Amino acid sequence: MKINFEHKISLRVRYSETDQMGYCYHGNYAQYFEVGRVETLRELGLSYKSLEDQGYMLPVAELSVNYKFPAKYDDNLTIKTSITEMRGARLAFEYTITNEEEQLIATATTMLVFVAKETMRPISPPTSFVKLIEPHEQK
Amino acid sequence: MKINFEHKISLRVRYSETDQMGYCYHGNYAQYFEVGRVETLRELGLSYKSLEDQGYMLPVAELSVNYKFPAKYDDNLTIKTSITEMRGARLAFEYTITNEEEQLIATATTMLVFVAKETMRPISPPTSFVKLIEPHEQK
Amino acid sequence: MKINFEHKISLRVRYSETDQMGYCYHGNYAQYFEVGRVETLRELGLSYKSLEDQGYMLPVAELSVNYKFPAKYDDNLTIKTSITEMRGARLAFEYTITNEEEQLIATATTMLVFVAKETMRPISPPTSFVKLIEPHEQK
Amino acid sequence: MKINFEHKISLRVRYSETDQMGYCYHGNYAQYFEVGRVETLRELGLSYKSLEDQGYMLPVAELSVNYKFPAKYDDNLTIKTSITEMRGARLAFEYTITNEEEQLIATATTMLVFVAKETMRPISPPTSFVKLIEPHEQK
Repeated sequence: MKINFEHKISLRVRYSETDQMGYCYHGNYAQYFEVGRVETLRELGLSYKSLEDQGYMLPVAELSVNYKFPAKYDDNLTIKTSITEMRGARLAFEYTITNEEEQLIATATTMLVFVAKETMRPISPPTSFVKLIEPHEQK
Repeated sequence: MKINFEHKISLRVRYSETDQMGYCYHGNYAQYFEVGRVETLRELGLSYKSLEDQGYMLPVAELSVNYKFPAKYDDNLTIKTSITEMRGARLAFEYTITNEEEQLIATATTMLVFVAKETMRPISPPTSFVKLIEPHEQK
Repeated sequence: MKINFEHKISLRVRYSETDQMGYCYHGNYAQYFEVGRVETLRELGLSYKSLEDQGYMLPVAELSVNYKFPAKYDDNLTIKTSITEMRGARLAFEYTITNEEEQLIATATTMLVFVAKETMRPISPPTSFVKLIEPHEQK
Repeated sequence: MKINFEHKISLRVRYSETDQMGYCYHGNYAQYFEVGRVETLRELGLSYKSLEDQGYMLPVAELSVNYKFPAKYDDNLTIKTSITEMRGARLAFEYTITNEEEQLIATATTMLVFVAKETMRPISPPTSFVKLIEPHEQK
């Protein structure tokens, strides 16, 4: 089912996240997407922490990033995260990162999979999650 | 031009690289691909450091990863890196990560772009690099 | 000269910052102290970014941390940063980290040194900085 | 009891570990000390992984670092790790980092504590570990 749920957060590029090109190291964006994802789920009503406590994990199965423009130290970035689809155990997200001048820094997609903590096998999302996401189905 | 140049290195998953799932955090793979890339270029005869000293940078423009099986703390991973194509300023790489039991951990591709350090605009690769890569053209 | 200037910020432990003990990896605290330091300097009126643009750097010369209680994923931590002393090129900071239950997570000190970007030699802090810090001398 | 057991490993500074000063970010040294520690324990005959599997954890309680000279991208560093003391649940380590020109990059100490995984309370080290360390008592 197609989903339409979107959330924005801001975060600053830390000094530790720069590299000697003087830019935010490209590998750190995966962390930013995760921060965006976690806060998006929280906005939806789901704490990722409680999900793990209920015996679920939600690992990343696919990550794809397009780097458009460098982010620099102390840039105040906006991470826009959208949940775009839920199909079986799979949950798709899209992201855009922009800086304060509205420049597009990066776009990305990730595919996550609900797995049972004990077996590490794909599993349907918990009913509690489905109830939270269903009102945001895109028709 | 299609390229066929391949290199393997091994590295161990550090404790700092695990997350509370007990796995190597998925975002850290970008670092592993970079280590693979740097050592592959060194094998080819190019020090990435000297490239920057000559006024070039080689940022990542696209990254795409498929996570197949979790890597764990202390796993001794093999990163196989291949240079697959050079076209204009762009240089394409492919990667596979396997563990000691030959399980496939991840596959990935990255697209890198030669840019001039001063202008940060795409630029043809240095002749010295072209000379190193040409013998590995795949016909 | 003894200084008394204090600032508090909050930040959440990211998933990427946990390790397989289920805790925030101890090495990541250095990043948290840096975030605290940067925001403390900003509160004082100094952007660290502008400091670098003026030809100064402020590397860490000494770091000492006491880990009291583990921080966990998604903990909303408070980083309290104090500038405690300025002597020649050296600037001393103290930190405490607490969680939402007011538990003491860690205490730390760092010694930073103003250096000239070109020579990387210790240098007196810029007058603009001295003017900002002097009103906070502890008598 | 005073211990005298020493081990050396080499590792290269990764691009991702640099910051925009052009140096290895100071917070990353904690990871290097950990790599040194793990390999030192392995040399002694103890896999840290198996220690966790036996129900023990060995978190860092204190970390103290003196930064002497910057490490740069691609530097091939030598991490010398020494176990210096075991007292109750506590295990002390010392470290020095040098580069290929034998320049001293950093010195550090850490205090680690054996804790039971279930209770997270300090606990005597496992007998198997004591047997491995005793022959290295410094008299």
